[in-house]
Amino acid sequence: AASVLEAEAGWHRRQAFHGGSSSRRKDAAVSAIRRTFAADLSSLAGSQVIVRGWVYRLRVLAKTTFMIVRDCSGEVQCVVPTESLHNLRPKVDDAIEVRGAVRKDDRARGGVEVDIQSATLLNRAASLLPFTSSSDVSGVGLEILTEYRPLALRNDRVGDVFRVQAAILKHFRDYLTSQRFTEIVSSKIVASGTEGGTNLFEIKYFDRVAYLAQSPQFYKEHGVVGFERVFETGHVYRAEPHATSRHLTEYYSLDFEMGFIDGPEDVIQVERELLTYVFERLNSEQAALVGRYRSAPLPSMLNVPIWTFAECRERLGRADLVDDLDPEAERQLCRLAEEAHGVAAVFVLGFPLSARPFYTHPLTDTSAAGFDLLFNGLEITTGGQRLHRRTDLESALEKRGISPAPFESHLKMFELGMPPHGGLAIGLERLTAQILRLQNVREATLYPRDRYRVTP
Amino acid sequence: AASVLEAEAGWHRRQAFHGGSSSRRKDAAVSAIRRTFAADLSSLAGSQVIVRGWVYRLRVLAKTTFMIVRDCSGEVQCVVPTESLHNLRPKVDDAIEVRGAVRKDDRARGGVEVDIQSATLLNRAASLLPFTSSSDVSGVGLEILTEYRPLALRNDRVGDVFRVQAAILKHFRDYLTSQRFTEIVSSKIVASGTEGGTNLFEIKYFDRVAYLAQSPQFYKEHGVVGFERVFETGHVYRAEPHATSRHLTEYYSLDFEMGFIDGPEDVIQVERELLTYVFERLNSEQAALVGRYRSAPLPSMLNVPIWTFAECRERLGRADLVDDLDPEAERQLCRLAEEAHGVAAVFVLGFPLSARPFYTHPLTDTSAAGFDLLFNGLEITTGGQRLHRRTDLESALEKRGISPAPFESHLKMFELGMPPHGGLAIGLERLTAQILRLQNVREATLYPRDRYRVTP
Repeated sequence: AASVLEAEAGWHRRQAFHGGSSSRRKDAAVSAIRRTFAADLSSLAGSQVIVRGWVYRLRVLAKTTFMIVRDCSGEVQCVVPTESLHNLRPKVDDAIEVRGAVRKDDRARGGVEVDIQSATLLNRAASLLPFTSSSDVSGVGLEILTEYRPLALRNDRVGDVFRVQAAILKHFRDYLTSQRFTEIVSSKIVASGTEGGTNLFEIKYFDRVAYLAQSPQFYKEHGVVGFERVFETGHVYRAEPHATSRHLTEYYSLDFEMGFIDGPEDVIQVERELLTYVFERLNSEQAALVGRYRSAPLPSMLNVPIWTFAECRERLGRADLVDDLDPEAERQLCRLAEEAHGVAAVFVLGFPLSARPFYTHPLTDTSAAGFDLLFNGLEITTGGQRLHRRTDLESALEKRGISPAPFESHLKMFELGMPPHGGLAIGLERLTAQILRLQNVREATLYPRDRYRVTP
Repeated sequence: AASVLEAEAGWHRRQAFHGGSSSRRKDAAVSAIRRTFAADLSSLAGSQVIVRGWVYRLRVLAKTTFMIVRDCSGEVQCVVPTESLHNLRPKVDDAIEVRGAVRKDDRARGGVEVDIQSATLLNRAASLLPFTSSSDVSGVGLEILTEYRPLALRNDRVGDVFRVQAAILKHFRDYLTSQRFTEIVSSKIVASGTEGGTNLFEIKYFDRVAYLAQSPQFYKEHGVVGFERVFETGHVYRAEPHATSRHLTEYYSLDFEMGFIDGPEDVIQVERELLTYVFERLNSEQAALVGRYRSAPLPSMLNVPIWTFAECRERLGRADLVDDLDPEAERQLCRLAEEAHGVAAVFVLGFPLSARPFYTHPLTDTSAAGFDLLFNGLEITTGGQRLHRRTDLESALEKRGISPAPFESHLKMFELGMPPHGGLAIGLERLTAQILRLQNVREATLYPRDRYRVTP
């Protein structure tokens, strides 16, 4: 039986695949069948199949070898006489093709095993890797996990983070689409900044200079003029000189903007319902993945309170907080909210107007109709009501000593029947990190970018 | 009744809103009710409602004025004595709030009308605009439509293009998710190019230089190592010196990549099924929108043929086509495919290997296992099988006179059990344009970027 298994067979050499002791006719029949996903094997007991995936676990006994093969659908235990593996010598994380017969086995996960008739290594993994797809990576540093990101993804501990992230994206878009929001795709190459002109990355754009967009703020406001309710999921760029556990120079922003609002509470209410929807779907559809990181299911966000900035200063006894909160204040406010409302989250509304961008609508003479959402101790959202009259925007710019002239093409959009409106932006990496209680936003970023890192 | 309608009432002055002849108590009751979407009015005959939207059409008769108000959900006809509009003077595209009573009217769309009791202009549109949301814009130039993009979006002719685009995005993601693909978010800031190093945009990245990603090619291949099947929807950047009707410097790329394939035909088959799914959903859910631009429904793509590059040259009698097709060849091949198979689309497989990127898997000694999909006369997809062995990649680089050393961090990923794999990229703007038979890809781009344009 040793000859049935080929070592390192080339891809185009697969035509020459040996059927071993089986007849030529039988071999031809096997060649004609297509690859089956592991998850689809349970109904195929008695059939000949081709399974392709990675060696996930390997138990080599004197007579029999048990090999768990994993693909994107799941896994299956394959069984083969140990002596027949003499030439192939498969190891964990090799890409393998297995041909064999599906056999019912009630002890097996999925109720079936595969008796291997032949196997081919499609590509070997290197011998000395810092971890494997089935090893415990809880002690492996972030630097190594990022350097070997593809292999880390194959390990559930890391892979589940990004499966949850993909699910968040899906649920975010699905919910907003169900609420009459239309997805837009706006440009990330802009002629000037939207948030005040600092921390911009400069692009050499043919014979001129352009910049990477810091947010889709202007475009989503323009989107309100057209569609009333819009959302966008896309990258934004901040030339952050800091490389903290919370900052990236490139992050993925979940934005929405809506027209005809009464005030910032309307935006807050949509976020409460949106996050509650996302969390409910994660609790039901990604329960096992989320459960790896959290002991309790994700909470309903419908009762997350709104506290004014002034009220927050008072609750914290922190007169030193003038323009904004600091990390310690964010953590403490979430603890206070959890005590009072059972959920570690709070909307902070009414920051000093001067500390928010020029387009922010006032709440009072000196406070802004802008808010942050703090969740599990970290700010994950900035939002608010925006000015919707051209004259108010001009005054706001002038009050800050900024000439309105360079904003003319933007200001013009406010003469097209711009309704009262507001919206928000959620950082995808931060949201993922807070949902899964990760310490560093980089753990929720496939390829993090910061002051010092542009690879891999 | 003239006094019930306010001109240019400020947003925060809405508290002082007049109820006109109605009593204070009734006014308070009206204030407590929330805004109703136009689409939800049909079941509310007899109720008092608040409707907010834009004036879409206005018919002013001697005694009665009929005003169609539109929001993101639909539209409703509102009726008011003409004399009462004396002060308000609403016009098309003003943002308006209307309070009134819903009245059953079988002649009306949705079965109801609203008798206006009071109205407030939330924001006026400028008086001299080059078009309105309800005017015929078929004769308005692309330049003007782009300059006034937000207002153009409110006009169905333009708005429907981007509604269809949003639907394409949704269906693309939904289909791939159903086929076990996982969405990934990869970085657009890279240390070097993936497609050969030309046409790169340079970013000033703190004290070094970085580039805008030309494609997520490497990252999605790495994704295969982790998840087997991945997709990404995101911007890619090409410093295209041309500003043709088909080229943008920034476009939105629909990418997927899949592992454990037998050859490029597996990728082609997924695209056939994917596009057929997208088209079926558009035909059923966006029938009216698509029908504005096409006389026939979108075709099934399951029978789109695969022709080799050599075969295409022969069919066209064009020995002058050495490395690639040209626009005329693309148009003519689609016509030939339509004659032969009833659908104006063809997969062209087997371009000269030297004309494709270094990572392309060979089909024969000199031809590539790479393909293009031509649809309605334009290339909308590039894809193929990739090399999956590190040694093959090194040879391919060396054959092109490129040193493998700078690719080390990429090549390393091929030692993690990289399976045979392939994938493709569809240009969202081109796909949208070809579906709706638009002449210029800019008509399907919210904010086009080219050699000469970085605004609005």
